[in-house]
Amino acid sequence: MSENYSKIHLGDAPRAELHDALGLTGAEVSVNVLPPGGGAPFVHAHKLNEEVYGVIAGRGELYIDGRVVPLEAGDWFRIDPAGRRAVRAAVDSAMTLICIQTKAGSLEGFTFGDGYLCDEKAPWH
Amino acid sequence: MSENYSKIHLGDAPRAELHDALGLTGAEVSVNVLPPGGGAPFVHAHKLNEEVYGVIAGRGELYIDGRVVPLEAGDWFRIDPAGRRAVRAAVDSAMTLICIQTKAGSLEGFTFGDGYLCDEKAPWH
Repeated sequence: MSENYSKIHLGDAPRAELHDALGLTGAEVSVNVLPPGGGAPFVHAHKLNEEVYGVIAGRGELYIDGRVVPLEAGDWFRIDPAGRRAVRAAVDSAMTLICIQTKAGSLEGFTFGDGYLCDEKAPWH
Repeated sequence: MSENYSKIHLGDAPRAELHDALGLTGAEVSVNVLPPGGGAPFVHAHKLNEEVYGVIAGRGELYIDGRVVPLEAGDWFRIDPAGRRAVRAAVDSAMTLICIQTKAGSLEGFTFGDGYLCDEKAPWH
């Protein structure tokens, strides 16, 4: 592999954690397949980390700061470190959920503010 | 909405950028639906940002530092800032691709190193 690159293929595990698997230094990313009614049995918050969640398939519920929000495929949401949160799949539906943890306030530029064009082409260009 | 929380539902747009939509401060996250053969018409690298990509559906190809790697649903990969990269969907398949940009080296603790339990329960606990 190029030293600038690492790759894995996820199997059928109910949870995959990518930080160690890919050598990430800016995020932890997990891919979670929750069975109907499944989720962590506690409410949690964070010290430094912002979380972004994406619902890839199925339906579920988010508990956030005392209220409950329904979730469905196509929903993406941000939770600040202090947000008191829990998620679960709906009692009648599995849910596939991506969770991204990053340090709040850590991003500087992005996309065209951080990226630059290279003087080479891919074979299909 | 809670001030600790923001949420959107993605429609049918071929590309959604979440940084501004959700008020992210630690990442840019984009969700991209590439048509067969589709992708950015250039190779790029980054100054500060590590990228993590996840293939949610379909197949495609990654160009990285002079070689080509096939991609399929379930693949996740990290590219360091200096990696010279381009992605496209396969000529005979669309590809749904999540791209996460974070500042390389920015993550401190994560999961149980940054999270803490709250003294409250969700309605389903």
